[in-house]
Amino acid sequence: MKIYTYPKSRSLRVLWTLEEMELPYQPVRVALKPGEPGIRSPHPQRKVPVLEDGSFFLAETQAICKFICTKYAGRVLYPVQPEEQAIIDQWLSFAITELEAPVWLTLKHKLLLPEPARVKAVAESAAADAQTALRLLSQARLDRWIAGENFTLADIFLAHNLAWAQAAGLTLSESLADYVKRCFSRPASLRAVEMNNR
Amino acid sequence: MKIYTYPKSRSLRVLWTLEEMELPYQPVRVALKPGEPGIRSPHPQRKVPVLEDGSFFLAETQAICKFICTKYAGRVLYPVQPEEQAIIDQWLSFAITELEAPVWLTLKHKLLLPEPARVKAVAESAAADAQTALRLLSQARLDRWIAGENFTLADIFLAHNLAWAQAAGLTLSESLADYVKRCFSRPASLRAVEMNNR
Repeated sequence: MKIYTYPKSRSLRVLWTLEEMELPYQPVRVALKPGEPGIRSPHPQRKVPVLEDGSFFLAETQAICKFICTKYAGRVLYPVQPEEQAIIDQWLSFAITELEAPVWLTLKHKLLLPEPARVKAVAESAAADAQTALRLLSQARLDRWIAGENFTLADIFLAHNLAWAQAAGLTLSESLADYVKRCFSRPASLRAVEMNNR
Repeated sequence: MKIYTYPKSRSLRVLWTLEEMELPYQPVRVALKPGEPGIRSPHPQRKVPVLEDGSFFLAETQAICKFICTKYAGRVLYPVQPEEQAIIDQWLSFAITELEAPVWLTLKHKLLLPEPARVKAVAESAAADAQTALRLLSQARLDRWIAGENFTLADIFLAHNLAWAQAAGLTLSESLADYVKRCFSRPASLRAVEMNNR
């Protein structure tokens, strides 16, 4: 299985999933910048991550991670039982919509876009929306993991989004900051970060 | 099974899923506005939709629709085969992140927020992001349905987001506009819209 990756991108979530499952995979570091020599992503917009499994190509991080769990029996990360799976889906959905959408917009308009394309009003409005999501999240129980007793796909997505929130200069509550640290100190996470940033 | 609904909200997608599967359900129209008399949503932020299935409560539209298909064998809308399911997940993910995030932000800052809270620069930037997603989408094959020969969950989410894009004043290509019409003229869709807008 090939995974097209780029440092500090969403491809980390796919490598983290694979490392938690201890599955073999082949990371392919793409060239993203115009003129940069190297392999391009097979995605029509050259995005990462993309999964290539034989002749099967798949985009969208959430879809890729679920596919890996479904096809290769990652049943701790993404259980079969409908109610258990639904609670993970609920938190995944919260992570990529309520939280990631404004965090990503903040990052783009504060740091990632070329300076002339950044709009201060957009960064400020997005940061306020992100703080609303963070306030809501800080009411969730996080003594173990977000969906219960086991570490799941929802933790991978939530932890990565919270780390992006920190990179965007947003303040996390103490319990959220502790949770991020706990997620990123898992051995599988350390291996995935190293592999993704090559 | 109870579904907490509100006119013109995301709860339409859940009712549409249920109507496609011809499952019995009990819609509960909530009061959202401060001071409005009526039943409140059990969601901690009073959001809709929420599913109540016996003692099981679930939020997040995508999670609810997948749960209904998984638990009640909606295998046309959401197949079991991993590659088929993954392609639907891929389009669902595209619909709720790439498309819905900027469409929703455009709607909020053009129409939904109280006037003093609207920020023109945010509406403009979001509309430009939404147009990028629409351009990308207009390259997809849409002679049948977004994930192939069968109408699936991905079509419900995509069609509803495209209808929101139209409501936000964004222009759809002819093939996308035709696709939206085709989705919304399905008998299950007509029944769901009527039920959701009560």
